[in-house]
Amino acid sequence: MRSCATAGVVALHRTLRKALRSFSAPSSCAFLGPNLPDVWVPREHTSPHTLFPESLQWANGYSAVILEGKPIAKQMKVQVADEIRKMKSVIGKFPRLAVVLVGDRRDSHTFIHIKLKACGQVGIETVVSQLPEKCDESELLDVVSGLNEDPDVHGIVVQLPLPQHLDEEKIINVVSPEKDVDGFHPLNMGSLAIRGRKPFSVPCAPKGCIELLLRHGVEIKGKRAVIIGRSKIAGLPTSLLLQRHHATVSMLHAYTKNPEEITSEADIVVADVGIPNIVRGNWLKKGAVVIDMGTNQVKDPSGHGFCVSGDVCFEEAVKVASAITPVPGGIGPVTISMLLSNTLDSAKRAFGMIETDVEFSVLGLYSYSKCTP
Amino acid sequence: MRSCATAGVVALHRTLRKALRSFSAPSSCAFLGPNLPDVWVPREHTSPHTLFPESLQWANGYSAVILEGKPIAKQMKVQVADEIRKMKSVIGKFPRLAVVLVGDRRDSHTFIHIKLKACGQVGIETVVSQLPEKCDESELLDVVSGLNEDPDVHGIVVQLPLPQHLDEEKIINVVSPEKDVDGFHPLNMGSLAIRGRKPFSVPCAPKGCIELLLRHGVEIKGKRAVIIGRSKIAGLPTSLLLQRHHATVSMLHAYTKNPEEITSEADIVVADVGIPNIVRGNWLKKGAVVIDMGTNQVKDPSGHGFCVSGDVCFEEAVKVASAITPVPGGIGPVTISMLLSNTLDSAKRAFGMIETDVEFSVLGLYSYSKCTP
Repeated sequence: MRSCATAGVVALHRTLRKALRSFSAPSSCAFLGPNLPDVWVPREHTSPHTLFPESLQWANGYSAVILEGKPIAKQMKVQVADEIRKMKSVIGKFPRLAVVLVGDRRDSHTFIHIKLKACGQVGIETVVSQLPEKCDESELLDVVSGLNEDPDVHGIVVQLPLPQHLDEEKIINVVSPEKDVDGFHPLNMGSLAIRGRKPFSVPCAPKGCIELLLRHGVEIKGKRAVIIGRSKIAGLPTSLLLQRHHATVSMLHAYTKNPEEITSEADIVVADVGIPNIVRGNWLKKGAVVIDMGTNQVKDPSGHGFCVSGDVCFEEAVKVASAITPVPGGIGPVTISMLLSNTLDSAKRAFGMIETDVEFSVLGLYSYSKCTP
Repeated sequence: MRSCATAGVVALHRTLRKALRSFSAPSSCAFLGPNLPDVWVPREHTSPHTLFPESLQWANGYSAVILEGKPIAKQMKVQVADEIRKMKSVIGKFPRLAVVLVGDRRDSHTFIHIKLKACGQVGIETVVSQLPEKCDESELLDVVSGLNEDPDVHGIVVQLPLPQHLDEEKIINVVSPEKDVDGFHPLNMGSLAIRGRKPFSVPCAPKGCIELLLRHGVEIKGKRAVIIGRSKIAGLPTSLLLQRHHATVSMLHAYTKNPEEITSEADIVVADVGIPNIVRGNWLKKGAVVIDMGTNQVKDPSGHGFCVSGDVCFEEAVKVASAITPVPGGIGPVTISMLLSNTLDSAKRAFGMIETDVEFSVLGLYSYSKCTP
């Protein structure tokens, strides 16, 4: 049960909010989509699909507009850095992100390096907890519980994948939903699935996907969206977000019998398969907007080392689509900026700068303890 | 944090489980679908759709098989009643369901009457908490919190809709996810959305929909399913369940531009709109399996009083579909049986008859208290 002492904290937060209202822009929820009522109207005829904004109609001849992620990521970083600067000057506090790494996977080290660097650029402090490849589950759970209890930590990222012997689901369950800046906790995923609800955090890549579409003026409401692949990191939450924006969403996966056929009906195509170039140009409807969430390591054509390739055959798709994200340089950079934004929002909640009266029953649920059978 | 005292309880539960294993069938999770890996194979050609079982091919001439819910509901009740009898005889305990009703809506009274009657038939004890139409939110939250804390209550149903002045979302958040036999808590919805996870409870109507399909031998994996309507009670969780069964799911709603066209591609059609007969025969592909979740009150053709009508124009659909649920008598009765089964499972968890080591972090989350600002 919540202790009465929190009443005092709440009062303090109110005072802070007043002081901070002068500069702190309310955390935007545009990415969650407009909460429209489902009013069905009788349809005598099928309404035609409207076109995408002219700006997206093969602006450069017969080639698609390239939805570059870097400029958007840069803008977002500037905004986040600006807010953190003001936060420091007014209340002398700043966001802190904790990253938990188990083992020595090279790719995990690379991803963490990128995250830490981005945090440094905007003024988010970071702490890294590194555990050995062969650590016990209990050691990892102790680390996560410690970070949950640390009031100076506002965001927690457990770098995935974890070694085989560790139960990923169990670890994610124990991350405090309020500090779950990856948005993978089932409480956050459920709040994303249920229209009208507001998760503490939304997974970064899907949030980046919506940000890219919105910033490029792509109309989502009423459009047919096809998500190819259903990972909990990208495909699933992206489908839930697009539904909140009132797209008509179809989820394709490895057991879909005719992915090309269904994809060819889509106005918006999101690829999250993990197979280089699986989505070919002939899968796409002319004028479709294509978001490539794939980041596949492939041998460099030069024969030296590796390079990153998407799930979409760019050379073919660029001739059919009206807009497409490049890989690398598309969703990737925006995803990192979303992690910064989620961490900032999480800190704002902790500092009482974002109104939140969300309360959940916890009876029968408990955080990890050594008494666990 | 979980107290060490629970260790003793856990030990007791282990002993109980041993004693009970003799009769207690493990709670089936077939409705959650097989947890298959997404292995993408190169596709040179589009694979053809396989047909539904012959038993569903217009068995009676040119009319669809009628997917009657009553016999299945009856079978399920017999199974639940049998388990409860054995439970009583072995440990002298039985499931108890608490129903919370606010106000005097006639339809709510009817629904609750049906639920209480069904509970009585199988040996589930019931308690009803009735609050006046104009009750404060705090009164309702106190009642729910009390039921959360009552170890003799295993399932809680807050009858919806609530009066306008009450925040439905806030009330549902406070129901303990372990006692949330309606499956509406975001933690349960999130665990349903994320493949491989197991919610404490799954919403009853969607669970009933899958039960109907499975018991009639309808193949779901690889089939195209269209859900028309996206309520959190039916459409949304049904889409999540069908995805877990590896159907290719498309969610249609009021902003879908061409619902007829998309529906006509579906092998399985689920209607959850709330508009009588909106789904016409010409929306359907020949041989489709149609699940009608609509329960709309319409004027009786005789002109006397009202009767219940589905969202699907039955007379037209029955000539095109290979199988269809009637309204009433289709999903309705199975839904009630699912509430009984969810309540039994919830009691089994409380009695330690179902293994569950699910743990969630609760830091920063708290159940309702009067200190709430």
